[in-house]
Amino acid sequence: MQLEEISEYGLVQRIIKHFPSKSSRIVIGIGDDAAVLSLDPGKELVATCDLLIEGIHFDLRYITPRQLGWKALAVNLSDIAAMGAEPCFALVSLGLPHQTEVHFFDEFFQGFKTLGERFQTSLCGGDMVSSPRGLVVNVTVLGQIEASNVLTRAGAKPGDLLAVTGFLGSSAAGLALLKNDCLGKLPPEVEKELLKAHLEPFPRIQEGRFLALNHVASALNDVSDGLAREVKEIAEASGAGAIIYGQSLPLSEAVKCAGSYLKQDPVLWALNGGEDYELVFTFPPENQAKLEELRKMGKMGTPITIIGEITRARNVLYTELFHGRRVSLDRCGYDHFTRS
Amino acid sequence: MQLEEISEYGLVQRIIKHFPSKSSRIVIGIGDDAAVLSLDPGKELVATCDLLIEGIHFDLRYITPRQLGWKALAVNLSDIAAMGAEPCFALVSLGLPHQTEVHFFDEFFQGFKTLGERFQTSLCGGDMVSSPRGLVVNVTVLGQIEASNVLTRAGAKPGDLLAVTGFLGSSAAGLALLKNDCLGKLPPEVEKELLKAHLEPFPRIQEGRFLALNHVASALNDVSDGLAREVKEIAEASGAGAIIYGQSLPLSEAVKCAGSYLKQDPVLWALNGGEDYELVFTFPPENQAKLEELRKMGKMGTPITIIGEITRARNVLYTELFHGRRVSLDRCGYDHFTRS
Repeated sequence: MQLEEISEYGLVQRIIKHFPSKSSRIVIGIGDDAAVLSLDPGKELVATCDLLIEGIHFDLRYITPRQLGWKALAVNLSDIAAMGAEPCFALVSLGLPHQTEVHFFDEFFQGFKTLGERFQTSLCGGDMVSSPRGLVVNVTVLGQIEASNVLTRAGAKPGDLLAVTGFLGSSAAGLALLKNDCLGKLPPEVEKELLKAHLEPFPRIQEGRFLALNHVASALNDVSDGLAREVKEIAEASGAGAIIYGQSLPLSEAVKCAGSYLKQDPVLWALNGGEDYELVFTFPPENQAKLEELRKMGKMGTPITIIGEITRARNVLYTELFHGRRVSLDRCGYDHFTRS
Repeated sequence: MQLEEISEYGLVQRIIKHFPSKSSRIVIGIGDDAAVLSLDPGKELVATCDLLIEGIHFDLRYITPRQLGWKALAVNLSDIAAMGAEPCFALVSLGLPHQTEVHFFDEFFQGFKTLGERFQTSLCGGDMVSSPRGLVVNVTVLGQIEASNVLTRAGAKPGDLLAVTGFLGSSAAGLALLKNDCLGKLPPEVEKELLKAHLEPFPRIQEGRFLALNHVASALNDVSDGLAREVKEIAEASGAGAIIYGQSLPLSEAVKCAGSYLKQDPVLWALNGGEDYELVFTFPPENQAKLEELRKMGKMGTPITIIGEITRARNVLYTELFHGRRVSLDRCGYDHFTRS
C-alpha cells in the first residue's frame, strides 16, 4: 500500500499508535498545532536539529527504513550528548515521495521508536509533506540540563588532555565497504561491526551526562564530521590549539582489517571520515582518575582513550602520525559547501 | 558569489552576524552542538515544526528569498498562536542547492529576522546541508505558555459560536493571480493586498495570546489548510459538529475582485484554499462582549467575524452557502497524500 492511499490524517493516526503519549512530561502531544511539554523545574531547555537528505546523507540501497529512523534520531541525540544534557522530546518532519510504501513509513518509525525508548525520548510532534524528489528527514530533539553543568566546545585549557569514547573510523570503514561493494569478502563479524557503526550509531548520552554531572570535562564535542574537525572546533572555541597523538587513535581490529583489505589508511577514516558519533572531550590531568568510572559504564564498558593534549599555540593542530612528522590538520573534515 | 565558495563555517558566521545572541534567554546560541535556552519559570514548553519543499510549498519564480524567510517563520509562529502561546526561539534547517547565491542566503535570513524581531523570536540554532535537488527549509519554533491557558482544538461545546480573525481566501486568491499570470491586470492595491496575504502572511500571535490569557475561547486552530478542514479538526477533536454560515465568511473586496476577474467563487478559496494563517476559534456566547477588545487590537484593529456554531450532531459540517442548501464539507481541505 502506498502513502497516497492514506490521508495525512491516517498517517498521523498511525504515528499516534506507534507513540502513545505515555510520558507525563507531554501535556499536549501529537495531533494539535503544537506540542506542549514539561521540563523539570530549574533545568534549561536544550535544542538541536539535523536535516538528512536522500542522496547526500543516506542511500536507500544501503540503509533500511528501520535503520534510517534509528539513525535520524541518533545523530540528534549525539548533539544532546555533546552538551552533557539529557534528551526528552523529538519532532520529526518528513518529506515523502508519493510512491512511498506505508511499510517503509512504519519501519522508519519503528526504528525511531526503538532508539527513543532507550533514552526516554518521546516523539511529540512533526510535519509530513510530499516531496517531489527524494526523501527528506528533519529531526529536532529537545532536552534539558542544569545551567551549571552545560559543557560546550569552549572551555579547554592548555595542558588539558584530549580523550575519545569508543573507536574511531568504524563508520567510514562501514560506508567504504558498502560503496566498494565488498560485502561477503571480509569475516562476517568484521562486516557486522562496521556496518552497525555506520547504519545504527549508538549515541553516547550516558557518557555525556557523566562528564557533565561529575564536572570531569572542560570541553565536549561529538564526532560527527571527523575527529580532526571536531578537535579543531574545540581548539578554536577555547582560544587554544591541540596536538593529536596519531599513534594513539583507537582503531578497532575490524577497522584495521577493512583498511588492509581496501588498501586504505584507517587513520584517515578516523581523522576525516566522520559519523562515528563518539564523544571527544578535554579534561584537566587531575581528573584522570575519574575516567575509571566512565570506563565501567554500560553493559560492555566504554573504552576511553587519551589521544592528545591542548596547547597554548593557537589554531594549529598537529598529528604525529606519519613517521614522526607533524602534519597540520587545518584543512580536514567534511564540509557541505566547499569544493573538495 | 555562490555558497560553494564559502565553507559551512563561513555560512554559520554570516548567520551569527545577522543574529547576535542578544536575548538574555539564550544561554548558548548558534555555533555549538545544541542551543541552551531559558524559559520563564512555571511556563511549559511549546514546540512545532514545518517542512517547506521547493516545488510543493513554494515556487522561486513567485516568492523572493526575503519573503520565503519571512513565510517559513510565519507559518510556524501561526502554529504557536494557535495554542495561545508566545514564541521564543527558532531553529532553521536548510538544504541548499550548490549553485545557491550567498545573496539569496542573506536575503532569506533578513526576511526571517524581520519577522522574528516583531515577535521576540530569536534564531538559536539549525543545520545547513547541501541538497542535490531543490531548496528544503525546515523551521522549528519553540515557545512557552502557562499550563492553565493552553488552547487546543478540543474544547468546543455545542452552542459555542465559531469565529475567525481577518479575511479568508486572500492567500489562495494571491496564489491564483500568480499561477494564472494575471499581474498588472487588476487594480494595484488589489494585487498588493492578495500577494502580501500569500507571500508575507502575518501570524496572529497577539490575538492568540489574548484569547488564551482572557479565557475567551474554548477551542483554537489556525487556518493553514482551508477553513473547512480547520473547523472539521475542531469539531472532531471536541466530539461535536459545526455549521458554517456560508454567507458570513469574511471576504475582502480584493478577493471578490480577483474572483470576479478569474471567474472563481471566492467562497471556495476561503473554504479550501488554505494558507490564510488567520485564527479560527470557538467561544461560549456569553464571552461575545470580550471580543470587542480583540477587535481593537493592533494598529489597524483586528476584524473578528462570527461564521458559525458548534452543534451536537457529530462529524457533520454544513454550509448554507449555495442558495440555502446545506453542503457537507467532509471532503474539503488540502491533504498532502491523498489523490485529489
